Amino acid sequence: MSNVTVAISPDWTIDLDIPGITVLEWDFKSPPPADHIDIAVAPHATTPDLVERVADTGTKLLQLGSIGYDSIPKELPGDLLVANAATVHETATAEHTMAMLLYAAREVDRSLASQSEKTWDQFDTLGLADTTIVLVGIGGVGTAIAQRLAPFETNVIRVASRRREDMYGQVYDMNDLPELLPKADSVIVVVPHNEQTDKLVDDAFLSAMPDGSILVNVARGKVADTDALIKHADRLRITLDVTDPEPLPDGHPLWDKALLITSHVGGNTQAMLPRMNRLVRRQVGNYLTSQPFVNVVRGNQHG
Amino acid sequence: MSNVTVAISPDWTIDLDIPGITVLEWDFKSPPPADHIDIAVAPHATTPDLVERVADTGTKLLQLGSIGYDSIPKELPGDLLVANAATVHETATAEHTMAMLLYAAREVDRSLASQSEKTWDQFDTLGLADTTIVLVGIGGVGTAIAQRLAPFETNVIRVASRRREDMYGQVYDMNDLPELLPKADSVIVVVPHNEQTDKLVDDAFLSAMPDGSILVNVARGKVADTDALIKHADRLRITLDVTDPEPLPDGHPLWDKALLITSHVGGNTQAMLPRMNRLVRRQVGNYLTSQPFVNVVRGNQHG
Repeated sequence: MSNVTVAISPDWTIDLDIPGITVLEWDFKSPPPADHIDIAVAPHATTPDLVERVADTGTKLLQLGSIGYDSIPKELPGDLLVANAATVHETATAEHTMAMLLYAAREVDRSLASQSEKTWDQFDTLGLADTTIVLVGIGGVGTAIAQRLAPFETNVIRVASRRREDMYGQVYDMNDLPELLPKADSVIVVVPHNEQTDKLVDDAFLSAMPDGSILVNVARGKVADTDALIKHADRLRITLDVTDPEPLPDGHPLWDKALLITSHVGGNTQAMLPRMNRLVRRQVGNYLTSQPFVNVVRGNQHG
Repeated sequence: MSNVTVAISPDWTIDLDIPGITVLEWDFKSPPPADHIDIAVAPHATTPDLVERVADTGTKLLQLGSIGYDSIPKELPGDLLVANAATVHETATAEHTMAMLLYAAREVDRSLASQSEKTWDQFDTLGLADTTIVLVGIGGVGTAIAQRLAPFETNVIRVASRRREDMYGQVYDMNDLPELLPKADSVIVVVPHNEQTDKLVDDAFLSAMPDGSILVNVARGKVADTDALIKHADRLRITLDVTDPEPLPDGHPLWDKALLITSHVGGNTQAMLPRMNRLVRRQVGNYLTSQPFVNVVRGNQHG
C-alpha cells in the first residue's frame, strides 16, 4: 500500500514523516487537493458539509477534529468511515473542569476580593474532600474528570443515560436525579447535547440542588436553560464553560449572575495537538498495516 | 486503665464517647482543669508555651493541632511525648494547592477579566497536562499534592532536603535546583521552614524560573524573600497562600503584584475536623490498649 495520500486541515500541525505517505494541506473549502485522498483530517470544528467535501475522492477515513459528531449524517457514501477525536480533548477539558470546581469549592472569588482590597481575610470553606459530587455524564470527558477527582477523597455519584453497574460501582440514570441532586455539594454536567439532554438543567433540576451548592457545566450550553440559571444564580455557585447562546453576547445578564464564566476554553490547551498527532499517526499506521481504524463513529468497518 | 482524662482545646469538637474516658475542655491559658491529665489536645496553633502548660499534670501525650512543631522545645519534662497533627491537614492544603495551580495554569484571571467586561474571550493556555512541575518538598503535604497531580498527565520532578531514590523514582536535592528550575512550567514550594529553607525562594531561585512560569508557595511565608517576589512578579505567575510578613499588612505592595494571594486558608476546610477526630480517637485507643502513640515528634517513646 504505497502512495497513501493524507489531506490535513491547516488547523492541525501533524508530523507524518512516514515513507510512502503524501501529506497535503486542505481547508475543506477549496476543491480537494488531489483526485484521490485516503485519509482526510478535518478542521477542529465539525460541520455537516464535511462528508460531502470528501464524497468524490475515494476517501476511506474522515478523521474529525472533535469528539462530537451529531452533525455528521448517519448514511455515508460508499465505504467512507468517520472517526471522532476521542482521546484528543478529554485531558484538557477534564483539567479545566477541575479548575472551575476548585475555584468554587475553595471560594477563590472571596480571596480575590480581599486581594483587590489589599486586606487579609482568613476564612473556612467546605472544600472538596468529604463532599458529594454528582457527575452527570461518564463518556470520555466524564471518565477523565472522575479519574482526576479520585485522589481528592470525595464521594462521586455517577449518572448516565442508562442505569447499570460497572467496575467502579453503581451508575444512576436521569430518573434518579430528583433523589440525587438534593445530596449534592457539587454537580458536574458533561453529557452530549441531544434531544434527551436539551435543557436538562432546568428550573426543576436547579431547584433540587441545595443552597450554596456548585454547578459546573462543561457539556454544551443548550444542556442548560439560561433563564433557569439566571433565576438560581444567587442561590447556587454556577460555573460555566459553555453558554446558550454561544458566544454569550456582550452585556448579556448571565455574565453578571454566574460565579464564573469561561469562554468555552475547556479544550484549548497545548495538550490537544500532541494527542491529535498520536491519533492521526495511529490511524495512518493502522491503514498501512490493514488494521481497523479506531474511534469509528459512522459507517461500517469491515475486518 | 480506667479514669483516663483527656483535656481538649475548644478549637476542636472531638467525639470521644468511650467508656472510662473523662473529657474536659481546656483553653491552655487558664489553669489545668484537673490535677492529672493523660492526653492534652492543644489548640490549632502551636505555641512554645504548650509544654510548660502541661508540665505539672503528669500528661503522657501532648497532641498538637498543627503539622509544624518547630516551636516545641527538644528537651521535654519527664515522660511527656509530643505528637504532631500529620494526617489532619494534608488533604485540605493539597487541595488548595491544586486550586491555585489550576487557577494560574488555565489563566482563570483572564476569564474573570472578560467576564467582568461582559465579553466573550476565547483563548489558548499552556494548561497543566504535558508540563513540567518542580515539587520542592515531599513531606506529608508534598506527597498529598503529588497524589492529586498523578492523574493530570504531568511530569513531576521531586526535590527534597536529601537526594535519593524511592519507589516513585528519583528525588533531587536543593543543589539540583539551578539545573531543574529552568525546565519548570510550575514550581510548588511546600518545605518546612527552618534554617536551610529560610528565604530559599530568593532572587537567584526566581531568576532561574522561565518567563511566565508559575510559582505556588504553600510552605511558609519566610521560605520566600518578599522583595524578590515583588521583583519577579511581572515576569512570573506568582500565587501565595503564605506571606512574609503574615498577615500581610493592608496595602502592602505584594497585594498588587502577585497573581493570587489567599490568606493562609490552605488548611481551612471542613476536611480538618473529621481527620482530627480520627487522630485523637486513635491516640486514645492506643493509650487504652498500651500501644505506642502515632505521630510522635518530640520525646522518647518506650515500647
